[in-house]
Amino acid sequence: MTKPKGRVTLPSEEGFVEETKELMQRWGADAIRDSDGTRLDAEIKSLDAKIYTAYFPTRGHNEFIGQHMEECPQIYLMSDFSLARTDELVIDLLHSYYKEQLDVDYLHDPKRYWQVMDRTSGELVPVENWEVRKTENKVVIQHAAPWHEYTVSFLAYIKWDPVQMYNHITNNWGDKPHEIPFDVKQPHSNVFILDTMKQWLRDNPEVDVVRFTTFFYQFSLVFNQYGKEKFVDWFGYGASVSVAMIEDFRKEKGYALTAEDFVDQGYYNSSFRVPTKAYLEYVDFVSAFVSVETKRLVDLVHQSGKEAIMFLGDQWIGVEPYGPYFESTGLDAVVGSVGDGTTLRMISDIPHVKYTEGRFLPYFFPDVFYEGNDPVLEARENWITARRAILRKPIDRMGYGGYLSLAYKFPAFVDYVEKITDEFRDIHGHILQTKPYSGLKVAVLNCWGALRTWQAFTVAHSLYSKQAYSYYGILESLSGMSVDVQFISFEDVLGKGVDPSIDVIINAGDVHTAFSGGEVWKNTRLIELLREWVYSGGGLIGVGEPSAVSHHGRFFQLADCFGVDKELGFSLSTDKYFSKVTEGHFITDNITEFHFGESMNNVYALHDGVSILEYSNGEIHLAANQAGEGRAVYIAGLPYTPQNSRLLMRSLYYAAGKEADLQRWYADNPSCEVHAYPESGTYAIVNNSHDPQSTIVYDGEGSTSAVQLEAGGILWKKM
Amino acid sequence: MTKPKGRVTLPSEEGFVEETKELMQRWGADAIRDSDGTRLDAEIKSLDAKIYTAYFPTRGHNEFIGQHMEECPQIYLMSDFSLARTDELVIDLLHSYYKEQLDVDYLHDPKRYWQVMDRTSGELVPVENWEVRKTENKVVIQHAAPWHEYTVSFLAYIKWDPVQMYNHITNNWGDKPHEIPFDVKQPHSNVFILDTMKQWLRDNPEVDVVRFTTFFYQFSLVFNQYGKEKFVDWFGYGASVSVAMIEDFRKEKGYALTAEDFVDQGYYNSSFRVPTKAYLEYVDFVSAFVSVETKRLVDLVHQSGKEAIMFLGDQWIGVEPYGPYFESTGLDAVVGSVGDGTTLRMISDIPHVKYTEGRFLPYFFPDVFYEGNDPVLEARENWITARRAILRKPIDRMGYGGYLSLAYKFPAFVDYVEKITDEFRDIHGHILQTKPYSGLKVAVLNCWGALRTWQAFTVAHSLYSKQAYSYYGILESLSGMSVDVQFISFEDVLGKGVDPSIDVIINAGDVHTAFSGGEVWKNTRLIELLREWVYSGGGLIGVGEPSAVSHHGRFFQLADCFGVDKELGFSLSTDKYFSKVTEGHFITDNITEFHFGESMNNVYALHDGVSILEYSNGEIHLAANQAGEGRAVYIAGLPYTPQNSRLLMRSLYYAAGKEADLQRWYADNPSCEVHAYPESGTYAIVNNSHDPQSTIVYDGEGSTSAVQLEAGGILWKKM
Repeated sequence: MTKPKGRVTLPSEEGFVEETKELMQRWGADAIRDSDGTRLDAEIKSLDAKIYTAYFPTRGHNEFIGQHMEECPQIYLMSDFSLARTDELVIDLLHSYYKEQLDVDYLHDPKRYWQVMDRTSGELVPVENWEVRKTENKVVIQHAAPWHEYTVSFLAYIKWDPVQMYNHITNNWGDKPHEIPFDVKQPHSNVFILDTMKQWLRDNPEVDVVRFTTFFYQFSLVFNQYGKEKFVDWFGYGASVSVAMIEDFRKEKGYALTAEDFVDQGYYNSSFRVPTKAYLEYVDFVSAFVSVETKRLVDLVHQSGKEAIMFLGDQWIGVEPYGPYFESTGLDAVVGSVGDGTTLRMISDIPHVKYTEGRFLPYFFPDVFYEGNDPVLEARENWITARRAILRKPIDRMGYGGYLSLAYKFPAFVDYVEKITDEFRDIHGHILQTKPYSGLKVAVLNCWGALRTWQAFTVAHSLYSKQAYSYYGILESLSGMSVDVQFISFEDVLGKGVDPSIDVIINAGDVHTAFSGGEVWKNTRLIELLREWVYSGGGLIGVGEPSAVSHHGRFFQLADCFGVDKELGFSLSTDKYFSKVTEGHFITDNITEFHFGESMNNVYALHDGVSILEYSNGEIHLAANQAGEGRAVYIAGLPYTPQNSRLLMRSLYYAAGKEADLQRWYADNPSCEVHAYPESGTYAIVNNSHDPQSTIVYDGEGSTSAVQLEAGGILWKKM
Repeated sequence: MTKPKGRVTLPSEEGFVEETKELMQRWGADAIRDSDGTRLDAEIKSLDAKIYTAYFPTRGHNEFIGQHMEECPQIYLMSDFSLARTDELVIDLLHSYYKEQLDVDYLHDPKRYWQVMDRTSGELVPVENWEVRKTENKVVIQHAAPWHEYTVSFLAYIKWDPVQMYNHITNNWGDKPHEIPFDVKQPHSNVFILDTMKQWLRDNPEVDVVRFTTFFYQFSLVFNQYGKEKFVDWFGYGASVSVAMIEDFRKEKGYALTAEDFVDQGYYNSSFRVPTKAYLEYVDFVSAFVSVETKRLVDLVHQSGKEAIMFLGDQWIGVEPYGPYFESTGLDAVVGSVGDGTTLRMISDIPHVKYTEGRFLPYFFPDVFYEGNDPVLEARENWITARRAILRKPIDRMGYGGYLSLAYKFPAFVDYVEKITDEFRDIHGHILQTKPYSGLKVAVLNCWGALRTWQAFTVAHSLYSKQAYSYYGILESLSGMSVDVQFISFEDVLGKGVDPSIDVIINAGDVHTAFSGGEVWKNTRLIELLREWVYSGGGLIGVGEPSAVSHHGRFFQLADCFGVDKELGFSLSTDKYFSKVTEGHFITDNITEFHFGESMNNVYALHDGVSILEYSNGEIHLAANQAGEGRAVYIAGLPYTPQNSRLLMRSLYYAAGKEADLQRWYADNPSCEVHAYPESGTYAIVNNSHDPQSTIVYDGEGSTSAVQLEAGGILWKKM
């Protein structure tokens, strides 16, 4: 019997031909790639597979950039908060920065491009009141206000590629040279990047796919004085800055960006910050520029008869896959790291590419592949969480990264990957590119909208965050739920109203974050549009502090819809009578234990018409309310668990007023889910847990049947 | 042996002479009082005791006020939030109010005195866009913005005295007439109050002490449509309002108060709200007026040879015992209900009176004195908590209220009160009016300052509040701690700087409340003064969200002092490395379990110099930091427990840099405390628990001794 093959990319390395062949066969791989730290030799490249080769357009050429250090990428940095105790204050610019990574930019006039801020008053310090001491990397402020704190925002050069730096330090690469990055915006670099690409394409005829890792601008990754990570923002545009970039911006937009536009009080425009107009315009400006430069490289790749894949990470800044310029890049594909269902959907939903590819975990690195550890555990968890999302919108290919020789030493892991690569192809074989059944259309509403599709509530790519996991669970639940999901912004609603095809809108997050919305909730037009929509029959789900801003007696500006508000301490004198839990409610049917994660305190019901669904510690954590013809549900927090995913699903159907539709293509056991593909006449029943499960399955016709599933099992049935 | 006698007030009632005599003897009472619902007959009044008689200046004369219903007290009320679905909206003014209590005021022009607010936009609705339907108690808004919420703020008359209403409903007084209150501001009432007092003094020569219960304006107590409490604010000036009052205010201050000045978005100027300038000026204006009217009655009392006591409660509004006009009233004494140590100190610290009296719990009412219940439990808890505060600053007298005949049926209770009245006199016998030893001077800093001495964090007099108990515990701890306590306002600091005799300043509360401070933390002068003071050696303690307002990269504006700040979600991209707990720190010495109450989430250390003293759930709840020559301590919450009181005490001594002084007059067992009276050469060791305790006692000379104390015991020693 010939094993099915395809849709799988294998990492390989020099001198590992026979084992590569064996694993190609077992995992059905039809492509081979190199990784950061490995290279493919001629023998490997001659195997019967597409050859992917990582390409780094902006690093790995110290001989070039060493001659043009003024073309290193730049970044605006903020000094430490420094307290003035007299009227003179000396601030050490790089005190808490890693000097191996960063140099202060003295080439451009500090008085023009830097800012000294009085962070106590919030005022800009006049340039005549401070001087730079170049040799010491210090700024001296005169006429300081004693007992005020000051910061200096300054331009720095990034002289060590942050990704290589990270790998270098993490893997103890010792005296391996530091790769110096260069900036495509600069004249020599721009020419060099293009010329080097041309030459490389000529030199590497055996490469089928150029795996851009990545393009031009690194997400923000800055180390501290101890050589440890200081801040990392996967969405940060900080390192795309340069004097050239901001001067061009000024010419095009008609206003100058200041240091504070980037430093943002030290928050550096985290995606949790409500984005300013200037920052959004800067993101757009950089994206437009990057897409043009990207297209030039992609065109070269195409001219040489190869494909161009982008890795979604590292220097991905400006290549926004959900942005307006992405289509114009002409990229053939995107490959990204799959951390869970959410990150899988972030990859698989990317429009305008021929295919998408997920790089699964664990990465074949010694941090996981060491004696005594079982890499299958991470692989299994990764697969099970990703599979939910694959069943909704599959990536086209899967793969791995790192040292294949390391993985090869773990036979159980090799076996497990064989199993899931087979399963992955089998899923494709059933779905046949058709759309899965969706019972509802759900929109996640925040400041970012579509640009950050499947990217909300993300601090670091699929990593746990105490402050985010209780919201991120919403995305993780939705990523594998039989509903259509879209991400909309407040601007979308203000501009076009609510798309009438939407069944339920979700607003979630902590107050004043971009995901909750902050001050936008004082916008009366927004309130009017949303209230009209809800009262006319729309569904609304709020998690945490939805629609929150303290304004005229309300904290939740849509408290009338939710039927609950949060006590901030101002209305403690008003009696709060309502605490009786509504039994037998549709949302909580068969749900008895709740897990609201970080949860939310001091939420109370406004009136006795509110269905309180969970009440403990003197506060409400789950409630439903009728608002005109519409319905709203409040949830204190929703970390991902199968149970919470089910709770959200029930809440969605309830809010939409479509309770009767819930049990179409449905499994009553929350650890199981049913995905139906009407166009291909098939449906899958999956067990998302690591234990055997039994469940009643409801098919789309109203029939039920009892089904047993093995741990992590998937069962395909014909309609 | 003659029992010691004095300092105790006994409630009595008609036809209960012999038992009264017996209890007078056993409890050593030297005064007898009546209560709401009881009266003293001639035989009782002839006993060898001072006779207190309750006097109600503004109620109990329906025959008078029935002729002048336009002189009932008024209050500004806000209608329910009402949603406009078209451009016409009808709002039912009294929908959620108790119609037995309240009438809408149509005597004064609604267009002049009412306000219709668009609560969605925050805008005032022009008077031409709304009309009143008197007969229906409704307001009709035209040209409403659909999907906006509106409220009407209107003037109402209070036609049922709220205290009598409360007692009437609580005790099922059936068809007992509703007492109609009247307003001293109004012409007929003003004359009537004075004349009635004169006549009453003539009619009651046997009365020694007039117990004013109370004066003119009831704290806010409003019932809802079901005859249940809707809101109650023990500090609320709402029911002092009248057209006459606001017109006089306008004449004196030069500006008109609006309905919104009272309604305050529906928060009604709760003492948790940062008070507006207008509200503070109104409080001052009413207080000045009330003190003049009070003095007139007090003068009459004095002219008749009697004493005038004020009950601290009910209609106490405007008679601010810690305000600037109190001394001018000439009151001889204040009596108040003792709920705990804090409320005891609120009474005992009142200046300018000859004596203070505490009315202890339980009140002799059937809600506690019923068969099967043991009233000793409440009495014991009440005494033990109050005694800590008595040992710092004793009330001069103690007493009870209610039906003596009811208490008499509980012999164990009678025994227990005999014990504590003896103990109370014994305390006075030892203290001999001298000042106790204080190791530190502590200032509680908030928006209210001295005006709300021992009244911070109070929702309802000594009642539990989920949102307040984690802060109220600070006061309760301080009330019985061997430190001097004062309450200062931000205005005090801004006006006079920090009093150099202060060792430690405490700022505590939830962000944007009057106790934390809100926007005042953007005042650079305040920051400068406090930082200079701390860095020069001052001690600072922050609880909850101290110095909090989101401003230029900081949430805690004194984060530099505390060494910690709270993550709001904006700096999640910045690594937070510090979590290592400092072992063996002075503050946590011998403290291993922590109870932060509602606690605070997401607090993190700014640098590795911070002493993290408790870290759990990925966040800091207790930390100490050196700031220049000064020190700051952060605590996530501090509900009252003996252990937390000790934690606060250690934090105070640490922050003050006076660790070496802690163990002067000190008991190492947190359930025990030592109070020393150097001027009378004595000290007390008290057991604040209901179990026997042993402790090492440190005297002021550095000697230690082991001491055993019985449950709730007190042991006096000579120095």
